[in-house]
Amino acid sequence: MTIAVCPGSFDPITLGHLDVVRRARTLFDRVIVAVARNPGKSGLLDLDARAALARTAVAADPVTADVEVGVADGLLVDFCREVGATAVVKGLRGGADFDAELPMALMNRHLSGVETVFVVADQAYAHIASSLVKDIARNGGEIGDLVPPGVADAVRAAVGRGVSDHTRAGRTGTGPMP
Amino acid sequence: MTIAVCPGSFDPITLGHLDVVRRARTLFDRVIVAVARNPGKSGLLDLDARAALARTAVAADPVTADVEVGVADGLLVDFCREVGATAVVKGLRGGADFDAELPMALMNRHLSGVETVFVVADQAYAHIASSLVKDIARNGGEIGDLVPPGVADAVRAAVGRGVSDHTRAGRTGTGPMP
Amino acid sequence: MTIAVCPGSFDPITLGHLDVVRRARTLFDRVIVAVARNPGKSGLLDLDARAALARTAVAADPVTADVEVGVADGLLVDFCREVGATAVVKGLRGGADFDAELPMALMNRHLSGVETVFVVADQAYAHIASSLVKDIARNGGEIGDLVPPGVADAVRAAVGRGVSDHTRAGRTGTGPMP
Amino acid sequence: MTIAVCPGSFDPITLGHLDVVRRARTLFDRVIVAVARNPGKSGLLDLDARAALARTAVAADPVTADVEVGVADGLLVDFCREVGATAVVKGLRGGADFDAELPMALMNRHLSGVETVFVVADQAYAHIASSLVKDIARNGGEIGDLVPPGVADAVRAAVGRGVSDHTRAGRTGTGPMP
Amino acid sequence: MTIAVCPGSFDPITLGHLDVVRRARTLFDRVIVAVARNPGKSGLLDLDARAALARTAVAADPVTADVEVGVADGLLVDFCREVGATAVVKGLRGGADFDAELPMALMNRHLSGVETVFVVADQAYAHIASSLVKDIARNGGEIGDLVPPGVADAVRAAVGRGVSDHTRAGRTGTGPMP
Amino acid sequence: MTIAVCPGSFDPITLGHLDVVRRARTLFDRVIVAVARNPGKSGLLDLDARAALARTAVAADPVTADVEVGVADGLLVDFCREVGATAVVKGLRGGADFDAELPMALMNRHLSGVETVFVVADQAYAHIASSLVKDIARNGGEIGDLVPPGVADAVRAAVGRGVSDHTRAGRTGTGPMP
Repeated sequence: MTIAVCPGSFDPITLGHLDVVRRARTLFDRVIVAVARNPGKSGLLDLDARAALARTAVAADPVTADVEVGVADGLLVDFCREVGATAVVKGLRGGADFDAELPMALMNRHLSGVETVFVVADQAYAHIASSLVKDIARNGGEIGDLVPPGVADAVRAAVGRGVSDHTRAGRTGTGPMP
Repeated sequence: MTIAVCPGSFDPITLGHLDVVRRARTLFDRVIVAVARNPGKSGLLDLDARAALARTAVAADPVTADVEVGVADGLLVDFCREVGATAVVKGLRGGADFDAELPMALMNRHLSGVETVFVVADQAYAHIASSLVKDIARNGGEIGDLVPPGVADAVRAAVGRGVSDHTRAGRTGTGPMP
Repeated sequence: MTIAVCPGSFDPITLGHLDVVRRARTLFDRVIVAVARNPGKSGLLDLDARAALARTAVAADPVTADVEVGVADGLLVDFCREVGATAVVKGLRGGADFDAELPMALMNRHLSGVETVFVVADQAYAHIASSLVKDIARNGGEIGDLVPPGVADAVRAAVGRGVSDHTRAGRTGTGPMP
Repeated sequence: MTIAVCPGSFDPITLGHLDVVRRARTLFDRVIVAVARNPGKSGLLDLDARAALARTAVAADPVTADVEVGVADGLLVDFCREVGATAVVKGLRGGADFDAELPMALMNRHLSGVETVFVVADQAYAHIASSLVKDIARNGGEIGDLVPPGVADAVRAAVGRGVSDHTRAGRTGTGPMP
Repeated sequence: MTIAVCPGSFDPITLGHLDVVRRARTLFDRVIVAVARNPGKSGLLDLDARAALARTAVAADPVTADVEVGVADGLLVDFCREVGATAVVKGLRGGADFDAELPMALMNRHLSGVETVFVVADQAYAHIASSLVKDIARNGGEIGDLVPPGVADAVRAAVGRGVSDHTRAGRTGTGPMP
Repeated sequence: MTIAVCPGSFDPITLGHLDVVRRARTLFDRVIVAVARNPGKSGLLDLDARAALARTAVAADPVTADVEVGVADGLLVDFCREVGATAVVKGLRGGADFDAELPMALMNRHLSGVETVFVVADQAYAHIASSLVKDIARNGGEIGDLVPPGVADAVRAAVGRGVSDHTRAGRTGTGPMP
């Protein structure tokens, strides 16, 4: 039985993430989502809130109903060892994505032998990234069709509390909003 | 009549930016420069100062003399809607640039149908980026041939006030200066 | 006699860095390592500590025994001028690396005529990056086979002092560790 | 009035091509499809057959109903000059696409000042390339949902005649078929 | 039980190919190597010879001893359907590789739902490509450490017979040999 | 003394090639241009004609006046060994270029230890490639400002003789000419 881990910061989980988890589940016998801190960013939602949203989202889809969600608070390879995973699954969108992932995939292989497997996300979700979702929410845009049910409310509430993973200023620029 | 927006943080506007605006103006009937906040950076110049410098720069070039400059303080798609723009114009230098722009272009299309159009910047300006310009200025280097008239003075004044978009330390390293 | 500079933040120096310095030394008559600040990061080790570790590392390898190490506290082109270097040597791993280096190489050529030369790092070190080394150390992982002798102790000591180049939180996520 | 040319070998025209032509038409006042020879390939369909299929396809879509189709039998810049076009429109899928197009875009600008404009194809067509369409047809696969009406019959007929742009062997391998 | 196919032209099989097959076998319950024609190349070895060499190579490695080898003479998706495979495994070296594979992966998913999974080849084999192996052999270079036992003899014999997948001229240039 | 080789098919030599040779000469004590066959292409000019044009071109520039030109008729590493070169110099334009060069650089290092060094070509020549030069000449375009003196006449004469490195048809399409 091959066990695979889908790591990410999931801040918040999006329809794009769910698509990758679903593909991982069709390929591997057991799949565990690992919600992790992202170095250099404080995050909009805290780790437990992100894990709760992810848990609800995977539970609602028949394909991923038996996918587990954990919080990873240390090396990804340690998390994989604890759960017995020999594979890490990540989605790729373009060549630059791969170049950025390569050193991490090789390092994880070096540290513990865990294999990183790349899948191609559904092109219908190619525009969805957590950072863009948060930018849109901060500017009052509609995010309901970018995330699983329940996530939009949580993001809007967090944004309303003034929590921010950048500086205080919630307005952004080079992305989809100025 | 096709209206196009050239978005960016323009902190400060460079000769490379001007080149893209000029190309946009030859392609579209009306062009508006949108000066926007850049998420995660506080900026060297404030938004109004950036817009003023951009306004002076486009006014001085016959090709771009009728280009308008606005401050975008929200979603780029909202700005486009307000001014009636159906196209966003960005300059590309290499493949990695495109991979970084792709999700934003797709998201903006998803949100409002606005089309992102990529042009190739003049190779004579391939070395000019706002971040490099500021790094050079902080280290006392000459930036007069990288930016439109008037911009170098404004940047040097801001740098002299100790304003910085990094930490306080104005010295940099992996870029053109250590 | 051609003099070349190997610039970087070397925070800390790794076996991957040493490999690039070694290749530079086989190509050029005199090689100087330039330890520089990295804009936007405060760094784990201070500049002098990084230079000291680099000095010990190059001295221990016969190929690089005569390589000098300096601290660059200004424009890289100024450092090159002071030491009489006409070439800058950098290692490349993938196409996205090159796209990121290109504007800086062109800018340095523009500022002073210094030529940037890219070498291919040994694939055996393709997984080693200073940022990953620090992430692993913060999470109690083994880094002894990623850095030259002596460096692991210095990194562990600095990590133990709670020094961090991100926020206070030493745990990371999308990289090799969650 | 800005006139734009959409060049390609269109051997045969696909739904992906049509999508790019449609986007070009929303951006420019007049659009002309230029069916051209592809150096190094003899082609499955002859130039006139390709142009006829393209003409039928654009005529059937209200957005592109007034798009013209021509056969380009010389330099693209000469074709643009003849029709008065100042822009060339191409679709991009990934960063490597852009790197391949860049020298041609710069050369055309050098030769005549014509500007190349890149648009992002609809992700729903990201899998469609003329070469894959022909490979599938040669192996008896279904191509009806990859091309405009009428094109599938023409391709199947040409394949049945044993016409081939590779060698005689119609079987392929590293692509979607072995 | 998840069945995966490793497709390629394997002309000839190399140590790099074997490494990818080995990784596929650790991830999936059953793995089948699909030796396929490569469009546009006539090949050095015929399909049966390639399959025989691949069969010997996988049989000699305990990890891949139960991997099967078939000849694919049609669409890859048809081959996958016949053997019941739901995954295709390919090795990636750099971002440009991914950009080239993406349309094929998406097309295969469109045609039959088969999922393409990318693994990272061992960096120790990053220099090995079948085309380079043949170039070296044609020029009398040593290829014994690039391919599994037995393959070097078969390649040398084929090269000696004057078989060539280019033109008759066996000398090459921009690659590792001029 | 470091000896470097600049390999290529030089069919014909362009101003872009000359720029790379000039940079190589400023970095290394002795530089040799290696004119080589290009696998899979028969070439417009024969090897001796290409070498003669390259010889005239480098002789006319004071920086490269002492650069030698040889014909490489075998492995590049064998050529390097014969002339005592320890470095190969190539120009890079974008990330995809690097990804394509990487396996060859690693293979040459594996075969003989020769180091490949990449330089950045002058952006003023970013549009010049031998294949585009030939395409333009075949279609009667002006190439005099793309190649060194004397080369344009030789190319036009060869094109006039009906020599072609594609099929007989000299017209091209997806490139700068349809």
